[in-house]
Amino acid sequence: MKNKKAAVLVAGSWGTALAAVLADNEYDVTLWTRSGHQADEINREHRNHKFLADAVLPDTIAASTNMEEAVTGAELVLFAAPSSAMRDVARQAAPYIGESALCVHATKGFESGSLKRMTTVLSEELGGDPGRLVVLSGPSHAEEVVRRQPTTIVVASASQEAAEQAQDAFITPHFRVYTNPDVVGVEVAGAIKNIIALGAGLSDGLGFGDNAKAALLTRGLAEISRLGMAMGANPLTFAGLAGVGDLVVTCTSKHSRNWRAGSMLAEGLALEVVLERMGMVVEGVRTTQAAHELSAQFGVVMPITEQLYNVLFQSQSPRSAVENLMGRGRTHEMEEVAADWGLHH
Amino acid sequence: MKNKKAAVLVAGSWGTALAAVLADNEYDVTLWTRSGHQADEINREHRNHKFLADAVLPDTIAASTNMEEAVTGAELVLFAAPSSAMRDVARQAAPYIGESALCVHATKGFESGSLKRMTTVLSEELGGDPGRLVVLSGPSHAEEVVRRQPTTIVVASASQEAAEQAQDAFITPHFRVYTNPDVVGVEVAGAIKNIIALGAGLSDGLGFGDNAKAALLTRGLAEISRLGMAMGANPLTFAGLAGVGDLVVTCTSKHSRNWRAGSMLAEGLALEVVLERMGMVVEGVRTTQAAHELSAQFGVVMPITEQLYNVLFQSQSPRSAVENLMGRGRTHEMEEVAADWGLHH
Repeated sequence: MKNKKAAVLVAGSWGTALAAVLADNEYDVTLWTRSGHQADEINREHRNHKFLADAVLPDTIAASTNMEEAVTGAELVLFAAPSSAMRDVARQAAPYIGESALCVHATKGFESGSLKRMTTVLSEELGGDPGRLVVLSGPSHAEEVVRRQPTTIVVASASQEAAEQAQDAFITPHFRVYTNPDVVGVEVAGAIKNIIALGAGLSDGLGFGDNAKAALLTRGLAEISRLGMAMGANPLTFAGLAGVGDLVVTCTSKHSRNWRAGSMLAEGLALEVVLERMGMVVEGVRTTQAAHELSAQFGVVMPITEQLYNVLFQSQSPRSAVENLMGRGRTHEMEEVAADWGLHH
Repeated sequence: MKNKKAAVLVAGSWGTALAAVLADNEYDVTLWTRSGHQADEINREHRNHKFLADAVLPDTIAASTNMEEAVTGAELVLFAAPSSAMRDVARQAAPYIGESALCVHATKGFESGSLKRMTTVLSEELGGDPGRLVVLSGPSHAEEVVRRQPTTIVVASASQEAAEQAQDAFITPHFRVYTNPDVVGVEVAGAIKNIIALGAGLSDGLGFGDNAKAALLTRGLAEISRLGMAMGANPLTFAGLAGVGDLVVTCTSKHSRNWRAGSMLAEGLALEVVLERMGMVVEGVRTTQAAHELSAQFGVVMPITEQLYNVLFQSQSPRSAVENLMGRGRTHEMEEVAADWGLHH
């Protein structure tokens, strides 16, 4: 039996790891990349050294710099471009995507300026039935996925059928896929958690402890939920894999880029230096700008976002930001999640 | 002005750290302990070597083996005994506790056999107005609290006045205290998270990665919430400091005893050996037994608790337990937090 065909755009660490999952499920995968050097390395050595140094990729993954070749005939097109490149990549791919192809994205962020979610950007560029769009998100470091360490994720779509098709395409014994109808919640959670991870990196980098980081993470979850609900999400999504699950893994794992960027900022390095040293996209930086604007647009209080915004773009010191977050609020303050005493009598 | 007087029973790591917080707030604190050696060490060297090796305690903390001396005249009595000793300690203290004394506990577990929560045990033993009972919980490793690293916690009581009194007693610039009316939720979350931490230690000890641990933690939060809601808790509590906050810190911090016990079990050590090497109470072990019974009593599905129960008491291998939890469920499975697609149309 001939394998099904999938295209993955682009060949960053997450795109490459998800290409390996599809290959495990007997897809022939074409990884599209702009870099001829990277395409050669993948085709000749089955490696993507810059993004997943240690992994050897299945030989059913090929790379191409030719979009038409990569996308034509693919039953599944996975978009894993940085949020800043999503519209451009989608526009290039659109002419070659078949009517019935399932379009999945795995990108965490908003479009700068327009503040649009990634499924909105894709819908605008791809046209056709928006029901074939799916977002894939959850606690899933690429480095572990490519080594087939157990991972659970969520696929969300306005169409249950599309979500279940994506589930079938990605599910393996090591990669458990759950469906969720809440596209907005899954996208907002995936984007905003990178801001909280930057904050966690700041806190750790400044020598604050695990107690402080847990407080930050708890408030971060509340901040994510507030924005998400204002944007129309189901609050339960934030208690799930794409919400608290992804938040935890991003704030506490050594693999997290956003955490690392935060910890480098805490050392006093300038943002430009941090981004240069990372050598990869740090989505949390752009997302902080976007969330700063979204919080004003939706009238949602986002204290962690505001402090990060001040550190990244207004020259505030990391220490004063974290101290502001640990706060010296009113003495008699009820926990923000708590209901009133009145309700319990 | 003469200092207020507080009694702390007993001098474990958490009781000692909270005694130091009270001392920072100008309480004269008497730490009650059964051990004459420990009392001498605290009184002569201002140290509690076994439980908080590196800390030097304020000299307004004294220790005593005499319950009458420790408790008489105390405006605040803090119970920080292991759950298995709570009833006995409360019974000994009861005759000396003044009518207007505020009684706070900081113990995470249920009474074995009766499955009662700690405020219920205290209420039965102390009599009088149950409104003066407060539970203190949240993400707060003692090792960090005693070094005045920033920490946030929750105090919950049926009485707003009592909760606010406890807030005033404990709040410092480093130790932020929030009130919450949900006693049941705060107590259930604090107890059950130790089971999830045992599971996280198992997962890490077996070499599973951060993705797997995040999945475990997400499902653990759902499991805590299910039991808590069945017992009458406010679901929002589980999204707060005593819920997700404490869960995260216990599952990801090197300070966590329950995590360490789990990781030792993963190495193949027998439970008795693990407990002996720990040399301190590992509440999660007893709590697993209690939660196993509570899940039956309240008809709540608790898969993590069941797997841990099988490992601890039924000789199941840690590896098969974690593999069962990562599961190979039905292919088309919706995330358990998700609402139906129908609701979104």
